Amino acid sequence: MSETREKTLFTPSLKRRGLLLVVSGPSGSGKGTVLSNLFERRSDLFYSVSATTRLPRPGEIDGREYYFLTQQEFESKINDGGMLEHACYCGNYYGTPRSAVEEQCDNGIDVILEIEVQGAMQVKKAWPDCVTVFIAPPSPQELERRLRGRGTESDEIIKNRLDTAMHEISHATEYDYIVVNDEVEESASKINCIMAAEKCRASRL
Amino acid sequence: MSETREKTLFTPSLKRRGLLLVVSGPSGSGKGTVLSNLFERRSDLFYSVSATTRLPRPGEIDGREYYFLTQQEFESKINDGGMLEHACYCGNYYGTPRSAVEEQCDNGIDVILEIEVQGAMQVKKAWPDCVTVFIAPPSPQELERRLRGRGTESDEIIKNRLDTAMHEISHATEYDYIVVNDEVEESASKINCIMAAEKCRASRL
Repeated sequence: MSETREKTLFTPSLKRRGLLLVVSGPSGSGKGTVLSNLFERRSDLFYSVSATTRLPRPGEIDGREYYFLTQQEFESKINDGGMLEHACYCGNYYGTPRSAVEEQCDNGIDVILEIEVQGAMQVKKAWPDCVTVFIAPPSPQELERRLRGRGTESDEIIKNRLDTAMHEISHATEYDYIVVNDEVEESASKINCIMAAEKCRASRL
Repeated sequence: MSETREKTLFTPSLKRRGLLLVVSGPSGSGKGTVLSNLFERRSDLFYSVSATTRLPRPGEIDGREYYFLTQQEFESKINDGGMLEHACYCGNYYGTPRSAVEEQCDNGIDVILEIEVQGAMQVKKAWPDCVTVFIAPPSPQELERRLRGRGTESDEIIKNRLDTAMHEISHATEYDYIVVNDEVEESASKINCIMAAEKCRASRL
């Protein structure tokens, strides 16, 4: 047994597999800004594009905003296990095609998948090797300040958003990591560290 | 349940607990150089000093090289659960006192414990929250080069060292993380990342 282990440790695979990092965070968590900062540091990262059956809006390009699929194409992908997760909103499908993620990871490229809580849990089941990260606001007060800061919406709309965010936060402990976003640079740096650390995990080597 | 979770996430403990990082690596892994580099970056780290019953050598100071204990003191600590691990070499005890590690961690200070494989596994049992890191040489060839490079020892001595190192390496997969030490700066940076990432683990929050 020990010989096999030595061999494994000393025989790095020809190409190390890329990591799939699944990132969630409620509205007001600052997830978007943190991910932008991360992509500035790591131009080698691949951002996973979702697929949808809704029609493209003016200016949207297939493969950039979404992969635009027909309902038949989408359903056939679901049935073939070609979607890492999917959901239906307003009569349209949305989902994460497995093939693009697989191709990048096979080529040693790390993939970022930005997705809400339910989808993240589906991906974890379909791709158990993935690493899940929840970006959280520092406090309910700060969350409310950020949500209010966006515009002049009514108290009821703000309250609804706050409730949705708090519901998502209640799932944070189901993630592998929680990054409390006090400061954007620091949060992006933490996510970068999480990726570096995960690549050293003995269970991956 | 979700309310408790929100509360937990949003109520950081008054003082975050320090991390206990247990580091092993065979002779020739470059562990010493990597740790020196890490301590240069992180002056806030605490290096855990071992206890021993052997007599101090000229120049050695109690609490710096070792805590020097009598056999009775050492055995009473073992019996009281005051040692995270211990072993006997050449008729003397060597071990890691729990109290110093506990005090630093309670004060939010991260502790580095440099220790061989058997001791590391004992610590993991006594302190399940600890993070174990194995520093490995990049290849058996490089390991041999490093071990030979040290002096003009006979082939037999080199062979013995190599066997010992390979035996230790066969335990690498029992650690949480393996850092293959190709380059010192990079390895120290990885260990630093491992600590940052571990502090974001949902299971610690």
